[in-house]
Formats: sequence, structure tokens, C-alpha cells
Amino acid sequence: METITNGVINGKESHSMSDREFFQKMYELIFKEAIEKTTAGKCKVSNFVHPQELKEKLDLAIKDEAMPPENILKLCQQTFDYSVKPGHPRFFNQLFAGQDLYGLAGQWMSDAINPSQYTYEVSPVFTLMELEVMKKLRELCGYKSGDGIFCPGGSIANMYAMNIARYKHCPQIKQQGLYGQARLVLFTSEHSHYSIKKGAAFLGLGTDNIVFVKCDEIGRMMPDHLEKAIIETKHNGGEPFFVVATSGTTVLGAYDRLDAIADICEAHGIWMHVDAAWGGSVLFSAKYRHLMQGVERTNSVTWCQHKMMGVPLQCSAFLVREEESIMHNGHCAAASYLFQKDKFYDMSFDTGDKSIQCSRKVDALKLWIMWKAKGNRGFEAEINQKFENSRHMADLIKKRDNFRLLMEPQCTNVTFWYVPPSLQSIPEGPEFWEKLAKVAPIIKERMMKNGTMMIGYQPLGDHVNFIRMVYANHATTTQDVDWIVDEIERLGHDIVIAD
Amino acid sequence: METITNGVINGKESHSMSDREFFQKMYELIFKEAIEKTTAGKCKVSNFVHPQELKEKLDLAIKDEAMPPENILKLCQQTFDYSVKPGHPRFFNQLFAGQDLYGLAGQWMSDAINPSQYTYEVSPVFTLMELEVMKKLRELCGYKSGDGIFCPGGSIANMYAMNIARYKHCPQIKQQGLYGQARLVLFTSEHSHYSIKKGAAFLGLGTDNIVFVKCDEIGRMMPDHLEKAIIETKHNGGEPFFVVATSGTTVLGAYDRLDAIADICEAHGIWMHVDAAWGGSVLFSAKYRHLMQGVERTNSVTWCQHKMMGVPLQCSAFLVREEESIMHNGHCAAASYLFQKDKFYDMSFDTGDKSIQCSRKVDALKLWIMWKAKGNRGFEAEINQKFENSRHMADLIKKRDNFRLLMEPQCTNVTFWYVPPSLQSIPEGPEFWEKLAKVAPIIKERMMKNGTMMIGYQPLGDHVNFIRMVYANHATTTQDVDWIVDEIERLGHDIVIAD
Repeated sequence: METITNGVINGKESHSMSDREFFQKMYELIFKEAIEKTTAGKCKVSNFVHPQELKEKLDLAIKDEAMPPENILKLCQQTFDYSVKPGHPRFFNQLFAGQDLYGLAGQWMSDAINPSQYTYEVSPVFTLMELEVMKKLRELCGYKSGDGIFCPGGSIANMYAMNIARYKHCPQIKQQGLYGQARLVLFTSEHSHYSIKKGAAFLGLGTDNIVFVKCDEIGRMMPDHLEKAIIETKHNGGEPFFVVATSGTTVLGAYDRLDAIADICEAHGIWMHVDAAWGGSVLFSAKYRHLMQGVERTNSVTWCQHKMMGVPLQCSAFLVREEESIMHNGHCAAASYLFQKDKFYDMSFDTGDKSIQCSRKVDALKLWIMWKAKGNRGFEAEINQKFENSRHMADLIKKRDNFRLLMEPQCTNVTFWYVPPSLQSIPEGPEFWEKLAKVAPIIKERMMKNGTMMIGYQPLGDHVNFIRMVYANHATTTQDVDWIVDEIERLGHDIVIAD
Repeated sequence: METITNGVINGKESHSMSDREFFQKMYELIFKEAIEKTTAGKCKVSNFVHPQELKEKLDLAIKDEAMPPENILKLCQQTFDYSVKPGHPRFFNQLFAGQDLYGLAGQWMSDAINPSQYTYEVSPVFTLMELEVMKKLRELCGYKSGDGIFCPGGSIANMYAMNIARYKHCPQIKQQGLYGQARLVLFTSEHSHYSIKKGAAFLGLGTDNIVFVKCDEIGRMMPDHLEKAIIETKHNGGEPFFVVATSGTTVLGAYDRLDAIADICEAHGIWMHVDAAWGGSVLFSAKYRHLMQGVERTNSVTWCQHKMMGVPLQCSAFLVREEESIMHNGHCAAASYLFQKDKFYDMSFDTGDKSIQCSRKVDALKLWIMWKAKGNRGFEAEINQKFENSRHMADLIKKRDNFRLLMEPQCTNVTFWYVPPSLQSIPEGPEFWEKLAKVAPIIKERMMKNGTMMIGYQPLGDHVNFIRMVYANHATTTQDVDWIVDEIERLGHDIVIAD
């Protein structure tokens, strides 16, 4: 059946261009849209259309018959038109942003080779490259030995930590399961990432067996509360096995005090993991690495290079300080068709059985290329600039009438309320906070529909909806910061919240 | 410190080219190497160098200072030189192969946009696209409703199945963990993929609680043995909750009889999952979909489109027939900073909480572009051709003196021994098999060092090392098949195994 949607005709037609011609045209389209227009900010950040309406605009349906390539090119143009642009200089909605051409070139190169990373035999260069990159990342953590691997995202890296800590604590669980075991309990802060909950559920530990330790007023886990919780857990028959500290919480950017937590973990013999998915990149910076003082005492680290370092998604390292064999022993299944025992080369370079994946994308190359191109110094300068942007924004906000800073920035997160003039006269009480809670969603809706920028908001504990600005994009300048503050004012100044 | 390695000088130099110039040169390099040379077979499949020696050839070390772009380009050229080429027409080492320019263009496009897939807000088009692609995949499975998501590889998709089956069986495990629960037992065939073991360990179920059901002589799980095992497990106080059938085993390509297994699962009320990571693509083929007869009765499916369909890595669907909410309920953690409850659009399109990941790469676009370009019919033709290649090879092997077919192909896997003339006079007994076991590794070493092709080998049960050929590459012709058989003969005919 032939259908016509938005001028695109689906139907039987012989190919009017070769595969290479199609590929060349796609390259030109991608270069124009994702590099020339997006990185220069010559397009909207978002071109918001509601889901049902967007479904009608796009010819997404798959058919029995082939679609001619020129029609596919038109649909790809539409895909660009309606996609949000994380590479745009005004995208601040998530903990990743920007477009690094060295990183993208590396990503494209590994995609074009299309390797899978499990054996030296099929990925010789990438195996050595991952080992080198992991070694350098461990050095930045102050780990003198250990192991590491790229995971498909920080959440799964945190699950690796949980599983390896469990294996260390009680290796027979791998064979026997959790039946008949003491109830294992893990500890993390109330501001930790939600992957800890997902992990405890997925690993069969149960979310009830997480103790969410109270944070201080700026979002850092309180060590005395942690220790009290550990003692209470033991008293109640639970077995503490895993503490997750956070370096750079998702919303506030808070850094838990690693040294104080390490003291407790060492005293009680508990595996200490730090989820530095967001904040780990301070390890490059002489100025800011003190925020992770004590990291060398942790047992493992999650650190996403695709966040503050601007590496294309995904690039999430799981690093372990323990003996090199623990990750292999904790995860191996020794498939005889892949990890043959009679190969002609040194099979210690078949690193795949450390992973819970079988096929695994190569994430090392893009980071390696960027790192070669910038050196440690280059990353340091970029990270310092992001911190300076957040400092500049906080200072600016403190001077502006309609803005109220939630707290001083600790990472590159800046959290604040915009209080429109219409709310300024309401005294701070239930009515004020209830109305203020409705402001950020309206500003968000307006920025999405205007397409000028994207920034996130959320409530947190007792704090009603506030805006969370994050600096993750290399390209953002202090002039951009000034513009952002003005733009929020422009979007929000006429907001009136009805009673 | 300045070092010179292979003519590449690392040191301080100001950038001699802009980022865009570097990117353009990288594009040219990638196009020349990965497309022009690799897909035309104008280079070796592998250029094998032992790990320690390769380390010395490559300047992998990361430094404090930046490396000039022209030196990075040279290192990228080296990376191509020493990388194995899965896109080469003579690469048959894994269950994926080839280079599809529509797929690669799609991969490059999503990389260049660099989205993460969790909310409609940041990935509007890709959210709808994933929903559409999942719907079509479910239709091919004969599922009338349900849900689906792309996972980072088939192994993790199998773990999703295990977790969702557990959630269905006993939802409170998500909160309470496995403590105090009946011992949950899962069943799979002795030829199933090793991810089932990894999953049982990772999910806290324990590998001892897997029953590996005996297979028949061609590698299919024996339903009567399965039923017996289920009854015995119940008798011994275990609680059967999950059966994994396999459609296309990794080595032999065997298809378990889904209908017979479904009868048993239905009778005992057990979740039936089918790991069709490798073999699922027969669902496109009128000629071969009978191999999965009964798939519509399963509760869930793993199916990697990056395998037989030739989509770039990674593209692994997890599909579930159950009510749409089960995957969300089984995995959700409801992070308030991401899945806000007061958004201005229909939040049912924020699909990310179905996943155990937070950041998640977009895997839908590349498949969608390929599917649009080929239609169902195009994929059907490609898959039929791959089956014909395997039939052609098996017929050829049966006619050749020094080849011995292990068994008739069931999927596109062809398994056989090469018996060099020097072994032909030895009677079939322990000496013969012991010597024959050493032949395949030598052929593999020779093909790696010659670089002419790559094919895998392994032992299996009582069968000593044999060669496993797999057809996954669209580009392979019957002429190539003839060449491969001759090449194995060339590499192996003079092998003599010392006593």
C-alpha cells in the first residue's frame, strides 16, 4: 500500500543512488546539522512538539517494501529538525553537553571498524588502549594497582562495584545465590544517584536493604550518621558490606568527605565505593582535586568521562583498587567458544570475561584521542573553566533581585530559584513556597517551546522546584553565563501564579 | 619529557590545524580505511602482532602535554593498520560481520547528535522511533501487546528477562531481596549462552541454581528432560521461575523446539524466555521462521539486530509480551530530578525508567534507517542468502576428502573438522581425536598470521576442537564460500601433529 506523509512517498522504487552516494549525502547532512549549525548555535536547542503531534509529522512506520534513499534522507533531515541538540552551546539539561570534534572523530572511527571488545584476537589495539587508559585513570585516583573496564553507563558501573564488593565479602554467593546468607546491607547518602536503588533491586539485594544516610545542609553524607547506621545494622543482624560515597551529587553537586568515610569503612572492614560519575573529573585539576581528598583509600570508583570531560556517550569507567584478578573472578563464566585455552598468544590479554557483557562497544578510542590531543593539562584547563563559570553565575545571581541562590556551588552545578515580581510581595510561608514550586516548570515549558536553551529543574527534600544549572560544555563562556541569567529573567518575569 | 616512538614526536606544539580540519582528515582516513579498503577486501583481515610487541609499536601513552593533531592522525592510521576488520568480507570470527553503509550512517548520525534516551524532553524523535521499532519487532514475534527496549548487548537483555520474570514471580524481591525467599531455580540448555550463568551470578540467584538441561545430538534442549528437571526441583524444595530456550545456539546454531517447551512452561506456570540473540532474524523469513514456531507463546525474547541483520554494534532488543507496565514496574526508581511529575507533556513518553541504565545510547536510529531502506523484504532476502551460503558450504564440505562435517547446519553456522592428510591413516580412536584437537588451533594461528580470513573454533562436549563457520555478512557470496574451503585446505594440508 502506498502512503503519502508529509510529501514523502513510501513505495517500491529501485535505488536511485548507490550506497556510497547515500552515505556521502548523509555525511554532508550530519556535518551541516550537527556540527556547523548545532555547535555554532545556529538552530534552536529544541523544537518542541507534543508526542502525538510529532508522531503525525514523522513517517516512522516500517513497511514490507524498501523506501527510496532520497526519501530516507528527507526523514533524516526531519529527525534533525525535531531532535534536541545536546551539542548546542545552550544545552544544559543533563550532566553532559557539547560537541568535541576529537571525541566525535574517535567515536566514528570505532563505529566504522565496528569491533567488539572481549578478546585480543578481535580487538588487539583497543585492548591495549583500554588497559592504558584505565591505568592513567587509576593513577589519577591514586590507585597503585588494580583493574578497570568501560561499562555501558555509570549506573551499570555502580552495579559492578556492588557485585564485586559482594564477591569480595562472600565469594560463594556467585555460586549459591543469596539464599541462607546473612542479610547484606549497603549504605549511601540520601542524595546519591538512583542507580544505587536500581542496582540493589537488580542484584537481588533488595531496596529495603539500603540505608540512606542523612546529609548535611549542603548535601554531603554525614559520617557520624553513617557510622551509627553501620553499628545499628550489625546490632539488628544485618551485615554491612558496601558503602557508596558520592563525588558530585546529581542535583547539588555535593562532594562527600571521602577521608572521613574511609576512616569508618576501614574501621568496620567495609568496601568503600565512590560514585564519581559526575564529579570525578576534578581529579585532573590541581585546584579542585582536594574535593576528592581520600579517593586513594576507596576500593572502587565510578567515573563517567562522557559527563564533565565532554567525551561522546558512552564512556563510563569502573575502576578497582583491589588485586587485578578480582573483577575477572567475580564476573567470569569462561565460555569455551570465546576464551579458548589453547590460543597461540598470551591469553591474559583476553579481557572480556571481566565484563558482564559479551559484545561490548569500544569506548576507549574516543577518550584516548581526546586525551592525546589535550593532555592532562588540557582537561585541567577545561574543568577549571567550568568551575569558574559556576562561580561567576552564583555571584551574578546573588546580585540580581529576582533570583535566589539555593546554596553556594560545590561543583559546576548552580541551584537557584527564580522568583517572579508577582511573588515578591508574598511573605515566605506555605503560600509563597507553593506558588514558587510552580514557577520552574513554567520557565522550563517556555524555554522548551522557545527553543532558546534547556536547563533542568526538580524539587529536593524540603526545597520546592528549583532550577539546576550545570556546566559540562567546553564551549560555554562567561558571556554565555550572563546571557543565560538574562534569558531566565526574560522567560519568567511575567509569570503570575493563580491562587 | 619528549619521546620518539616510530617517528611520532610527542611534545608541546601549538595546534597546526583547526578542530574542523582535523575532523575532516579523520573522515577521509576512516572512509579510506574502513569503507574503501576494508569492505572491498583490499587489506588483511588481521595483521597479527603479539601483545608485548604491539605495545612497543604503538605510542599509546598519555602525557601531561597535548600531542599535535598530525601526530594523532598518524597514530589513528596505525590503529587501523593493526586492528582486526569485522567489516572485511573475509571476517567470520564472531556472530556479527560486514559493513552496512545505511547502518553506519545511522550510527554516525546518532553519535553526532549525542543524545541520551530516557525522557521525551531530550530525545523526542528517538523515543517515538524506539517505540515504533519495538512494536514491529514484537509483531514479528507474534506478540499482540507488550513492551520492549534496547539493551547494551544480548547478555544484559537476557538479564532483563531474568529480572522481569523474577519480578512477575515475586514482586516483593525488588524491595526485600532474596532473603527468606524460596530458592528460585532457572532452566536452560547445556548449549545456552554463557550470559545465563553471568546473569544468575549477577542477580544474586547463584549459578548453582541453574539447571542445565541435556540436549539432543544436534544441540536442542530435550523437553522431556526439562519437565523432569522441573518436577525434581519442586520435589527438592526449589521454586522453578524461569526457563530460557535458545533460538540459534552460539556454536551449533540449534533451535530449541519452542512449542514443546511452551507446553511445559504453561503447564507449570513458569516464565518462558527465548534467547534469540543470534537466531531471531529468521522471523523475517517465510522460509525459515518455522524454526521459531511457538515464539508467540513465549513471555519474552532477546534478539540482537547487530548479529545476523548486520546492524552496527550495539543493537539488542529485549521484548516482553506481558502487560506494558511490567518492565517499568520491575525496574523503576522514579528519580525526581529526571522524571518530574509536573511536566507539561504526556509523561508516559518518558520511557527511561524501564531501563536499568540512566544514560542510554540511542540504538534505534541505525536499525530504523536500515529497515526503511530494505523493508521487511530486504532483510528477508539477506537472511535467506546467509542460510543458502551455509547450505552450500555444508554440501561442498561433504564432497571434500579432508573435511568432515560435524552435523547438518541448522542456522547459518557450519561446523566441521579439517583432517589433514597426515592424520587420514590414523584409525578413529583416542590418538586420532587427540591429534585432531590440535589442528584447528594451528589453522587459526596460520589464518591470523596470514591475515586472509578469520574463523572461530572450539571444543564442545565430546567433540574435540572443530571449526565454526558463521554467515552473518550480507556481502558473502557462494563464490566466497568456495574460496573459504580452499583456503582452509591451503592453510591446513601440511599440518603434521607430533606424537
